[in-house]
Amino acid sequence: MRKLRMGMIGGGIGSFIGDVHRKASSIDGMIDLVCGAFSSNDERSKKSGKALFLPEERCYGSFQEMIEKEKQLPEGERMDFVAIVTPNHMHFEPAKMALENGFHVVCDKPMTLTVEESETLVNLVKKTGLLFALTHNYTGYPMVKQARDMIANGDLGTIRKVQVQYLQGWLATEVEKTDNKQAAWRTDPSKSGVGGALGDIGTHAENLLEFITGLSISEMAADLGRFGQGRTLDDDGNMLVRLSNGAKGTISFSQIATGEENNLAIRIYGEKGSLEWHQEEPNKLYTRWLDEPFKVFTPGGNSLYEAAASSSRIPSGHPEGYLEAFATVYRNFGKELMARLEGNTVPAQDYPRVEDGLRGVKFIHAAVESDKNNAAWTKL
Amino acid sequence: MRKLRMGMIGGGIGSFIGDVHRKASSIDGMIDLVCGAFSSNDERSKKSGKALFLPEERCYGSFQEMIEKEKQLPEGERMDFVAIVTPNHMHFEPAKMALENGFHVVCDKPMTLTVEESETLVNLVKKTGLLFALTHNYTGYPMVKQARDMIANGDLGTIRKVQVQYLQGWLATEVEKTDNKQAAWRTDPSKSGVGGALGDIGTHAENLLEFITGLSISEMAADLGRFGQGRTLDDDGNMLVRLSNGAKGTISFSQIATGEENNLAIRIYGEKGSLEWHQEEPNKLYTRWLDEPFKVFTPGGNSLYEAAASSSRIPSGHPEGYLEAFATVYRNFGKELMARLEGNTVPAQDYPRVEDGLRGVKFIHAAVESDKNNAAWTKL
Amino acid sequence: MRKLRMGMIGGGIGSFIGDVHRKASSIDGMIDLVCGAFSSNDERSKKSGKALFLPEERCYGSFQEMIEKEKQLPEGERMDFVAIVTPNHMHFEPAKMALENGFHVVCDKPMTLTVEESETLVNLVKKTGLLFALTHNYTGYPMVKQARDMIANGDLGTIRKVQVQYLQGWLATEVEKTDNKQAAWRTDPSKSGVGGALGDIGTHAENLLEFITGLSISEMAADLGRFGQGRTLDDDGNMLVRLSNGAKGTISFSQIATGEENNLAIRIYGEKGSLEWHQEEPNKLYTRWLDEPFKVFTPGGNSLYEAAASSSRIPSGHPEGYLEAFATVYRNFGKELMARLEGNTVPAQDYPRVEDGLRGVKFIHAAVESDKNNAAWTKL
Amino acid sequence: MRKLRMGMIGGGIGSFIGDVHRKASSIDGMIDLVCGAFSSNDERSKKSGKALFLPEERCYGSFQEMIEKEKQLPEGERMDFVAIVTPNHMHFEPAKMALENGFHVVCDKPMTLTVEESETLVNLVKKTGLLFALTHNYTGYPMVKQARDMIANGDLGTIRKVQVQYLQGWLATEVEKTDNKQAAWRTDPSKSGVGGALGDIGTHAENLLEFITGLSISEMAADLGRFGQGRTLDDDGNMLVRLSNGAKGTISFSQIATGEENNLAIRIYGEKGSLEWHQEEPNKLYTRWLDEPFKVFTPGGNSLYEAAASSSRIPSGHPEGYLEAFATVYRNFGKELMARLEGNTVPAQDYPRVEDGLRGVKFIHAAVESDKNNAAWTKL
Repeated sequence: MRKLRMGMIGGGIGSFIGDVHRKASSIDGMIDLVCGAFSSNDERSKKSGKALFLPEERCYGSFQEMIEKEKQLPEGERMDFVAIVTPNHMHFEPAKMALENGFHVVCDKPMTLTVEESETLVNLVKKTGLLFALTHNYTGYPMVKQARDMIANGDLGTIRKVQVQYLQGWLATEVEKTDNKQAAWRTDPSKSGVGGALGDIGTHAENLLEFITGLSISEMAADLGRFGQGRTLDDDGNMLVRLSNGAKGTISFSQIATGEENNLAIRIYGEKGSLEWHQEEPNKLYTRWLDEPFKVFTPGGNSLYEAAASSSRIPSGHPEGYLEAFATVYRNFGKELMARLEGNTVPAQDYPRVEDGLRGVKFIHAAVESDKNNAAWTKL
Repeated sequence: MRKLRMGMIGGGIGSFIGDVHRKASSIDGMIDLVCGAFSSNDERSKKSGKALFLPEERCYGSFQEMIEKEKQLPEGERMDFVAIVTPNHMHFEPAKMALENGFHVVCDKPMTLTVEESETLVNLVKKTGLLFALTHNYTGYPMVKQARDMIANGDLGTIRKVQVQYLQGWLATEVEKTDNKQAAWRTDPSKSGVGGALGDIGTHAENLLEFITGLSISEMAADLGRFGQGRTLDDDGNMLVRLSNGAKGTISFSQIATGEENNLAIRIYGEKGSLEWHQEEPNKLYTRWLDEPFKVFTPGGNSLYEAAASSSRIPSGHPEGYLEAFATVYRNFGKELMARLEGNTVPAQDYPRVEDGLRGVKFIHAAVESDKNNAAWTKL
Repeated sequence: MRKLRMGMIGGGIGSFIGDVHRKASSIDGMIDLVCGAFSSNDERSKKSGKALFLPEERCYGSFQEMIEKEKQLPEGERMDFVAIVTPNHMHFEPAKMALENGFHVVCDKPMTLTVEESETLVNLVKKTGLLFALTHNYTGYPMVKQARDMIANGDLGTIRKVQVQYLQGWLATEVEKTDNKQAAWRTDPSKSGVGGALGDIGTHAENLLEFITGLSISEMAADLGRFGQGRTLDDDGNMLVRLSNGAKGTISFSQIATGEENNLAIRIYGEKGSLEWHQEEPNKLYTRWLDEPFKVFTPGGNSLYEAAASSSRIPSGHPEGYLEAFATVYRNFGKELMARLEGNTVPAQDYPRVEDGLRGVKFIHAAVESDKNNAAWTKL
Repeated sequence: MRKLRMGMIGGGIGSFIGDVHRKASSIDGMIDLVCGAFSSNDERSKKSGKALFLPEERCYGSFQEMIEKEKQLPEGERMDFVAIVTPNHMHFEPAKMALENGFHVVCDKPMTLTVEESETLVNLVKKTGLLFALTHNYTGYPMVKQARDMIANGDLGTIRKVQVQYLQGWLATEVEKTDNKQAAWRTDPSKSGVGGALGDIGTHAENLLEFITGLSISEMAADLGRFGQGRTLDDDGNMLVRLSNGAKGTISFSQIATGEENNLAIRIYGEKGSLEWHQEEPNKLYTRWLDEPFKVFTPGGNSLYEAAASSSRIPSGHPEGYLEAFATVYRNFGKELMARLEGNTVPAQDYPRVEDGLRGVKFIHAAVESDKNNAAWTKL
């Protein structure tokens, strides 16, 4: 077997998430970055590629050029898949074109601006049979997998109550008016879509909730805030949610929660037990029980289900973090792709897919609609 | 000066909150329990009194008897105030009668079953000029006072976002069907009123939020749950709230949050900083800032405002808990009462009052109404 | 039955530990403070007593006067026991005189300045049959009792390794040169004895270690520090210890650990499991196991042994603190004394005794000797 | 510029630390693994190499073969440096030979079995001018660099007291008697050297202490334990230490601390402030102060010194872990090496060097000597 070959769309030098994708894809030694359209400016793309030690001829000035030229390279050389790490409005076109030209896709979230675009991608994936991974990276943490499997195995009993929060403070002041690129596009509806913080982090909250519980949000009442002066997109939100099995709960997210760093946290209460997980301390899963003491699970520690046990890379007590969880999405996608390329059949691996992307985009639109109607209950 | 003399209504042997009131009122050595109507059964009342080392003649079979007989005792002997520690439906009548007969009152929460009853008490307090303390005991914690004063002093800037949760798990199973008295009356509308967990702990969440922020909830959307089989009262609830200054947030409370003990927690986000406090670790106040490191305040520690500094009883690092915070309500009430009895004028001391009780009862009724209307926004 | 009657020696207004003893003895409603020799100055003693609502005639100008006069009062009126809350050098004489005159004793630690004095008290207690409680208050915490009972029941297997630390920072600067009475006597060998921090907090570390493990320190190598300018007594210390069963470990204590409040913590490692407890978060007992997840025990929570279950006063999640643990020493002493006064036989209750006091004083002297010999191993 | 080319010695499939070195060296995209002597068995080495996607001809059966053959490759192809990830007894020879043949070295710790071997390497590095990095990986954590720089800048004032602990439990039972390779060589003096846990983790404790404080241990009294049946090497140890400036403290390490995972922690107390860091929660640096509240620093957070700020790879709140800290050693080594290869001059980068390796080996031998003399003070 050989290493997988990745082409990157977006992610020029200075990009936050492009750098994360590069590091995450390299940790497990399965994937080589072989080409990129790092910028829509050819010169800037080549400059970024050079800093990444890529040959100039494989640094392209547009994703169209990359897809076309790579397609013409010999099979033993051309990229296997694209990683799309652009702002939201630039996910759909590259993903569509990649799929139409036979390339597998890893795409950042939210998947597209509109529900229709997402449905198009879902259909394309079905039609082409190509692999599509969506980087809901928080599902890659071992303790998140443990949480999911404890619930799937009935350890907590029927789920009754949920709480998810995703709190950041980096937009507490209007940094989009300074030279902050990250803030600029995220507060710009033409690039971010109809959701601000909602799309950026609210979708992670939604995905984590549905991933861990195995339940779906059936309806929601959303009250969005726009606290930064001059912002048209939400920078804060609070929701009531009702789940498919009758459970109830709240989702709260914010990018104006002053001083918060990346405080994604979830609490799930079942009839027999409950669990709690905090992204900022990802290596602890707190659980509480009707008749037993409070128990804390750790990666590589005692009494784990298989997925948690196998998704930890190093012995217990050696903290794994954000990049490793992100890498697990790549690793699982990579395993499935390698098997495919070798003509082997493997069970579907554990990573978020195009359908999860559609779900997230529906969530954004439902929340925006609810908010417009003064937080009226809205089906999802 | 002399010690204050307290008469207790309710709180017979085996009672949870009666015992708490006795311990809390005794810590500071200012108050003696001198009489009680511990039960509506004369024999049981006397038995309870005996175990508390009280003379038989001051253990009464009803609050009416106690108020009448004590009133006839010489001034140097009769009780100064009553402490009402009965289930909810038995707050109003004793409080009213005590006030009408010249006795000051300490009363547990929620203050009454109906808004009208609460308004009656507010008016009676106004008319008689007697003191009335409501035991929203969580306001007694030094770090809660520090939180309030940091916001009042503008340290956090304009408040934008709030989160309050009060999570317990003791009603996760239907313990009211066993021999659990606490559960029995709390799930019985005739004793608890229209709110279940809502009245029992939701009111603490509301009070804490308004106490710390100095803002009031202007409207709410409440989605209540009744998860325990056969329950007619809520045992869980989630709310969206909007505050008087435009801030937004959530309140979540539950008594079916399996495994949770007494997890009352609050997060407040302002333009310049934010704070976080957890009742189960009451001696830490977490604060986050735009430009400074995360800071933690502790009772007796550095950089406290006066109320926090003076409401700690022992040096920093010697944990104070639930009883001490509860005792602070008694201590502050007691200071004001002592001054009154000595004919001195003192500034109004820092403890929750009859108006806070009215506010809580309004909150219960607004939430129930919102819930009936599928979580429609309801003014408070 | 009646309430117990306590006479206090030391503890005038402004005293730290006297106030703690008063609060702790009052929480459970079993003990009344009836008299005191709060100061060796008669006027000051009376002034303190007045603030405590005591009649002037029972506020004495010396412990000798108190013991003599109280002895002459009728049995139904005179104090039952003395609480000795003076600086170290004033423990022995009052304790001896109280015992010789038939009064039971509660005494602060370290018990005496010399080993000989301690042995005298041990013998007097044996001879008189009177009760003697030493306020090693940290043994009163429910989770400390749980720790002890887990080890006693073999849950952890044979103990191999121990770590105890007791870190404070209040003597990081030379506050004894300011108007700080607490610092003044603690850094004065004539009042504190041969140990400084060693006697004040090192003895708590020693006691906690032996209490929880059920093992004794057989030898130690102590390296004491005197960091504050001009100090002749230690304000810091580090020790290697070897226990009676072959276990090894360290004790570290300090009053110059800048910024530390009252950080007493212990870790015990056995063949099958281990435990960890922190005084500043006293309501959690952390345990780790060969084959099971990390478990945390809480007062009133699941799976407790009897002593921990019964020594908690309020439901789980309602934090109990320093005063409550201190109160448990009084409560258990009080139960035994009440039974005695009523002529009943009760099993020996769970509180530290005169023998623990002797042990602590031996520990101080052994550490000082070891330190003088450049931390040579010294038997205890 | 081009990527650096690494050859690995040891680290065949299934190895713990070899895999860590591979992941850590790949994260930043600066280093390619190009060859390896993964095993002293040629076939096993080639099998490991294949799984790592290496060409067969660059998988060697011995480090000698690798060094010789790689030396003969054209400059544009041959490895730039070796990474030595073998058990302790196999560090010296490969390191020596690599240096003698012009290859830079990254080597795991402890550097060698004997002090003489370490001195040989120190001299070779001096003579050849080649780079030598020792993977004391814990120095790579951003908060460890912050701790060092706070002390170097005098924020804490003169250091008075230190505590270091490194606690693991994986040797609590005699797993070396099962099929556990990691345990087998670590408990075997012929492979591990004179120190067991002492060499494996005690040296990390020593290095961290000296790295953060900028002070050196001048003497120590060490009491080592051998608790596992049949072990000749220590599996536990406790030490008193005295530092070059008069500070005092303890080091405690263990691999029989049942249930502990990788609990390396340090506390440093200065005249003006103190700090505390825990490897298992590496993204928090706790600090305490004479006159200010408790403050917590985080990577990417507010108020950091430059080294901490720049050694974090992702925004604050996105946890970085063990691999990232390890990667920072490689990154800094790589930066210096790249500059060297390009003929540029750069300031010495921040990573542990051959002198740190010598220090660690001296520490091991001093501790063993002290222990043999019943924990007598021994100079370091």
